[in-house]
Amino acid sequence: MRRDSNAERSDGDLLQRFRAGDVRALARAISLAERRDPGARKLEASLRDRARRPYVIGFTGAPGTGKSTLVDALVALLRKQDMSVAIIATDPNSPFTGGAILGDRIRMQRHALDPKVFIRSMGARGHLGGLSLAARETIRLLGAFGFDVVIVETVGVGQSELEVAAVADTTVVVLTPNLGDGVQMIKAGILEIADLFVVNKADLDGHQRVLMDLRSMLSLGRASPRGEVQSSSRVRDWKQMIVSTSATEQKGIDVLWAAVEAHRHYLETSGRGRHRAEQRLKEEAVEVVTELARERAWDVLDGDAELTEKLIERGTPRAAAEEILQRVGTEAPGHARSHLRKRGPRG
Amino acid sequence: MRRDSNAERSDGDLLQRFRAGDVRALARAISLAERRDPGARKLEASLRDRARRPYVIGFTGAPGTGKSTLVDALVALLRKQDMSVAIIATDPNSPFTGGAILGDRIRMQRHALDPKVFIRSMGARGHLGGLSLAARETIRLLGAFGFDVVIVETVGVGQSELEVAAVADTTVVVLTPNLGDGVQMIKAGILEIADLFVVNKADLDGHQRVLMDLRSMLSLGRASPRGEVQSSSRVRDWKQMIVSTSATEQKGIDVLWAAVEAHRHYLETSGRGRHRAEQRLKEEAVEVVTELARERAWDVLDGDAELTEKLIERGTPRAAAEEILQRVGTEAPGHARSHLRKRGPRG
Repeated sequence: MRRDSNAERSDGDLLQRFRAGDVRALARAISLAERRDPGARKLEASLRDRARRPYVIGFTGAPGTGKSTLVDALVALLRKQDMSVAIIATDPNSPFTGGAILGDRIRMQRHALDPKVFIRSMGARGHLGGLSLAARETIRLLGAFGFDVVIVETVGVGQSELEVAAVADTTVVVLTPNLGDGVQMIKAGILEIADLFVVNKADLDGHQRVLMDLRSMLSLGRASPRGEVQSSSRVRDWKQMIVSTSATEQKGIDVLWAAVEAHRHYLETSGRGRHRAEQRLKEEAVEVVTELARERAWDVLDGDAELTEKLIERGTPRAAAEEILQRVGTEAPGHARSHLRKRGPRG
Repeated sequence: MRRDSNAERSDGDLLQRFRAGDVRALARAISLAERRDPGARKLEASLRDRARRPYVIGFTGAPGTGKSTLVDALVALLRKQDMSVAIIATDPNSPFTGGAILGDRIRMQRHALDPKVFIRSMGARGHLGGLSLAARETIRLLGAFGFDVVIVETVGVGQSELEVAAVADTTVVVLTPNLGDGVQMIKAGILEIADLFVVNKADLDGHQRVLMDLRSMLSLGRASPRGEVQSSSRVRDWKQMIVSTSATEQKGIDVLWAAVEAHRHYLETSGRGRHRAEQRLKEEAVEVVTELARERAWDVLDGDAELTEKLIERGTPRAAAEEILQRVGTEAPGHARSHLRKRGPRG
């Protein structure tokens, strides 16, 4: 996690190239964010005059629902309106490799010559939760670079859809008729995070059925007092919309975009947008605190063999954790590191 | 996350019932751990005289590899040797509901009358990483209750297999011939975490092929200098074993158990077991620090409207996070809470 000196030397150059609109500088900056390298934050700080939040749309759904084709069709529509679009495709199933996902490579070919489309895969490298922090920093970098819209797409496994909803302005949940029992297969919690539902593959049998089931589930959720309690603040006052699409036939994409715009308008006029922005910053601040605490806790532990002994003797970590947290808060990071060198070897 | 007063009143009773071997008290204690309720830690502290680490075997693999049937067959074998076994089935796909997974319900029926078998489902409730802390506390509770062996089983999605490997003494990765290209489909990082491989469904076509592919991948990993670097310390000196099973026909289960015992023997005689135990405690201590930091960061933020204003004004969380971390370390938790009440409303 230490900065490499090469990166350090080229920091100034990176800023210059980023400001000049060099897409490789953007890609490099995102890599730094992904690696949780402080260079990304330094760059961001130097770009404060450019700070501008792009509109962020999150797409989530089970594998096989046609999310990528849908996103692709939406990008084509946005490009016709001369908006620039960046796509972040997250794959929480790839904790180790950072390579592009297959779908990406195909799309990259299609948009390869369009400088106003940027596509980037992110794996869930490093510790849990790291994906969401990297995505948050990446969104700011993309905004500073000038992108109007950022689409965050995830395969809906683990808790990735929750992470997407946490960073998106509008969260789109994609369903299809061909997945098991349709609506019954929706993972718990998914209903709550959706601002819009897309029922894709309108050409398949069972499409109407999914629409009907979904409508009745949503109206049940709204009508019953119990549903009211369960629904998060996210859906309050906003009637979740359902859009029917056939991405492969390019049908319904304009309606989808109209629905996104309606939701954006709702966020802006209701004050919910401002509230969500606040909430997002608070969440991110807490995530950064968590990340810093984790890093520095390792520094403290690695630098203090006595503490480790005590830990093993006790057989349970609670008391040691309280002590570590106190030191994490009071010792400056540089200070903790020099402790490390004085007191003992790593590991 | 606040304790409910009912729980508080029955704490003493819970301890008594736990000591008396009441399985409902155990179940209740695990629920507390899962909810991250301090009651679980209090109970654990009161059970120090009973502290005893069970042997923990982790099972991971893609859905459809027959993990549950395999675990089931292993449990039957262990019961014949009069060992008591607890199974923790984790499902990171269920962040909200805590209900039993289908496979569990079936197994519960089979072992319903056996008091020396305990089965428990855990969803990834709450924030990321919470599953692993809850699992670690649960393992200690199961040990204190007297279980000899704990099996942690996970569907291999997201980063769940990494979490399993982090808590297990022996990590078993289950493969089958009927999943796509077999070994080619293995997720990155899986090879490194396995102590044993099980190639299940020996009756299916392609079984030999999977065995061969796996062997050549493992020997490549060992031979090449690059493989050496990539392989974690986990596999150092231990030659990962491959076991062929047919769980539905109960074949190979005795070989699997012999392989687990061989690995256990290796851990005990090589000193790796002690090293891993240390590492586990350090990891857990860092996770607890992280959890505490997250909780208290929210307390600080919710109790300080000015800080939130500054955060929004700056538009980026880094500086605020450093300030929060300092306060998290220096202000006692009770103190922070009273701040909350004095300074401003929640949210």
